[in-house]
Amino acid sequence: MSKNLTKRSEDYSKWYNELVVKAELAENSGVRGCMVIKPYGYAIWEKMQAELDRMFKETGHVNAYFPIFVPRSFFEAEEKNAEGFAKECAVVTHYRLKTNPEEKGKLMVDPEAKLEEELVVRPTSEAIIWNTYKNWIQSYRDLPILINQWANVVRWEMRTRLFLRTAEFLWQEGHTAHASKVEAIEEAEKMLEIYAEFVQNFMAVPVIKGLKTESERFAGAEETYCIEALMQDGKALQAGTSHFLGQNFAKAFDVKFASKEGTLDYVWATSWGVSTRLMGALIMTHSDDNGLVLPPKLAPIQVVIIPIYKGEEQLEAVRQRVLPLIDELKKRGISVKFDDRDTQKPGFKFNEYELKGVPIRLAMGQRDLENNTFEVARRDTLTKATIAADEVVTHIEQLLIEIQDNILKKALDYRDTHITKVNSYAEFKEVLENKGGFVLAHWDGTPETEATIQEETKATIRCIPLDSKKEDGVCIYSGKPSTQRVLFAKAY
Amino acid sequence: MSKNLTKRSEDYSKWYNELVVKAELAENSGVRGCMVIKPYGYAIWEKMQAELDRMFKETGHVNAYFPIFVPRSFFEAEEKNAEGFAKECAVVTHYRLKTNPEEKGKLMVDPEAKLEEELVVRPTSEAIIWNTYKNWIQSYRDLPILINQWANVVRWEMRTRLFLRTAEFLWQEGHTAHASKVEAIEEAEKMLEIYAEFVQNFMAVPVIKGLKTESERFAGAEETYCIEALMQDGKALQAGTSHFLGQNFAKAFDVKFASKEGTLDYVWATSWGVSTRLMGALIMTHSDDNGLVLPPKLAPIQVVIIPIYKGEEQLEAVRQRVLPLIDELKKRGISVKFDDRDTQKPGFKFNEYELKGVPIRLAMGQRDLENNTFEVARRDTLTKATIAADEVVTHIEQLLIEIQDNILKKALDYRDTHITKVNSYAEFKEVLENKGGFVLAHWDGTPETEATIQEETKATIRCIPLDSKKEDGVCIYSGKPSTQRVLFAKAY
Repeated sequence: MSKNLTKRSEDYSKWYNELVVKAELAENSGVRGCMVIKPYGYAIWEKMQAELDRMFKETGHVNAYFPIFVPRSFFEAEEKNAEGFAKECAVVTHYRLKTNPEEKGKLMVDPEAKLEEELVVRPTSEAIIWNTYKNWIQSYRDLPILINQWANVVRWEMRTRLFLRTAEFLWQEGHTAHASKVEAIEEAEKMLEIYAEFVQNFMAVPVIKGLKTESERFAGAEETYCIEALMQDGKALQAGTSHFLGQNFAKAFDVKFASKEGTLDYVWATSWGVSTRLMGALIMTHSDDNGLVLPPKLAPIQVVIIPIYKGEEQLEAVRQRVLPLIDELKKRGISVKFDDRDTQKPGFKFNEYELKGVPIRLAMGQRDLENNTFEVARRDTLTKATIAADEVVTHIEQLLIEIQDNILKKALDYRDTHITKVNSYAEFKEVLENKGGFVLAHWDGTPETEATIQEETKATIRCIPLDSKKEDGVCIYSGKPSTQRVLFAKAY
Repeated sequence: MSKNLTKRSEDYSKWYNELVVKAELAENSGVRGCMVIKPYGYAIWEKMQAELDRMFKETGHVNAYFPIFVPRSFFEAEEKNAEGFAKECAVVTHYRLKTNPEEKGKLMVDPEAKLEEELVVRPTSEAIIWNTYKNWIQSYRDLPILINQWANVVRWEMRTRLFLRTAEFLWQEGHTAHASKVEAIEEAEKMLEIYAEFVQNFMAVPVIKGLKTESERFAGAEETYCIEALMQDGKALQAGTSHFLGQNFAKAFDVKFASKEGTLDYVWATSWGVSTRLMGALIMTHSDDNGLVLPPKLAPIQVVIIPIYKGEEQLEAVRQRVLPLIDELKKRGISVKFDDRDTQKPGFKFNEYELKGVPIRLAMGQRDLENNTFEVARRDTLTKATIAADEVVTHIEQLLIEIQDNILKKALDYRDTHITKVNSYAEFKEVLENKGGFVLAHWDGTPETEATIQEETKATIRCIPLDSKKEDGVCIYSGKPSTQRVLFAKAY
């Protein structure tokens, strides 16, 4: 397998697109802006889903499923939410096709099957879910409701990129209802923590937790919490968001509850989601010019074993050594593939699994047979070692942990050396231009300044970091006073 | 919790609808024909998914994801498939809403955002998937492709019922591509076996495997295999289908492969699916006038423990006995819930878990505390026994197996006593009228006779059973010769 992958230094964006396709993660479909997630890519997504689902359930959440269609009148109910999503939504207007009398074999919309009310394909489910919660909530005894949904959503994006921005994508969306503001805020913060934990511990991607500014908030939220990661080209990527929705949706759908104290109050809400966009973050954080680098915890194949042999007899000898090893690895929960295809040469296979980011590659050839050893190669460092057969299981177990730690450390080092504090607009522009990454700067708190800076530099405020210390300063743009630095970056 | 459930003997259909809602499995949504699957219902579906997914993977299948939208031109490509689904499909015609200038706060379709080509919300994915496979298949080395997708689909049904027939439903759809006809037929048959095994071993629902007649075949298939179950009201329910698609989709999308022998041939295909409709089969097969009866293998809660106490001290004494038991049960993989809510009385809780079909209910009161026993009640027989505490874990383990076996046996007994062989049309009508169930009768093999019988009796040919023996006879309707009995029934 010839990789012919564009180098990151040549064209990072081209490298990414090629890698996604060549590693067989996803490809563009015949439908504008929609992707096909291929089996290898989907296997990674399934591993992400399994971990997240476990974490949601451990914190008391349950799954449910709500309709894909949002009638226009529900969609309109929460004004800001409607405004935010109306411009890019898929609208169902008819429920039938009929034979086109003018063209043989062709169909056309049946004008007699026009819907009385249009249906929007959900871009997010607050509206349809709160219209349901209305019937579920009467008293404080019905609260909290802690529901998550795994689903597809559609947003009619004009410029799309595999995983990062697609017209249809897969995600989970949590929608919770609470009796108090404090409890809802706690929930939103708790889910942000879970996202941060998942992204760091499983994806090995370090993130900065923060709050969005008003102009970057989710349409309909009172407050949006987010985690921001940094890609190898110095651009930021929003990896997950958790929203405190206040009573906005409860008011829009008239959802009140009788409190313990006997008052009738509007219900407090949160929503939170991560999507297949995480695949983009995973790919861009760790991979290199040879292909994908996957964290062992999410790799569909953690260990690949490749026999190097001449003739069936030698292959059989290798197989006899390898089969008990495979059993032993599987017993320890390690996913392993023995690639004994005779249609491809070892070199081709080496390239293929490098491209696909398999964390550990084992090879056994004639010399290994004689010495009872394996050649063990790690994907992250591209280094090799010869390991005695009776030590190889322990070695692999340790190596998987080491690789997971190493790629997190590498990403963390990159991220930390790409957070720059600046105190002037000139410095700000210089850093964005020549170094990239996150820039910590003072801002006067106005949407006007935020917008102007974005217009002039393409950098946006990624977040107001949660751990940001109060510090007196002046806005790099307006010179007005500021008490806290915020995090700027160019972003995906 | 008062159940107030309509009796099956009074109105089976009403009983079903009430049960689905009262047991909190699903409810109708604000969107025409679409349901909300509530957490308890979704938890059962998740258990079904997990088992099926495991079985698919064990037989070499992998998951992937394809777009929800099918452009009209793809949809048209396979003529019979298009004809079969065009009449009831949701069509996206626009990609934007805009402010309605005539009504404040209202939105309308933006006429300037009309799609050049309409998009059909997938009613099934053969078209979009074969348009993709076209690019994946060049040679026999690219075959077979064994892919499954978990997804939502939309069919604009006019008369809907929770789980049984809804405009949107959840399902899995397998789509495979093969180098030979024989291999494709083997695949279709293998998946039918897997469905039958799952439905019988996990859902405890007996099924008859068979082939659909031409008029009941999937639109675009050469042959449709199916499994048919019998509900307690004597009506049949199609529980799963597996289609041999021949080369129909390969021809429609021009998918050819270079064979080992060097010829260029069209690819052979199958597709197969089961849906949330299985929930309906599960509910209707086992449940009774007290509520749901769930097979232990799919019950989200297998054992519920209810304390019977006066005052916090007694509750604490029960809790001390129960906590180690819970640990022990969980260790053995048994899902258990300890319901110590003080807001509800034990009788209310008993009713609630009966309604929700929890297989085993444990209670511990003052006398049990003194004697160190538990009251163990089983949901399927509604019988109780007093079991010594040190035997209760073993007892539960055995009981779960026994309940699973018992409800399968009960369903099998019912089914077997409701298969009637008839030799005349008069007898046929009499059985359908007074007894219901499956009727085995000779048929002349023509769609005309099939249609007339359906018109006159509402019974359809559910399938030509795979294990049906050749037997000379005459068609009950036309008197023409027949060599095999087919399976008739009224159906959902």
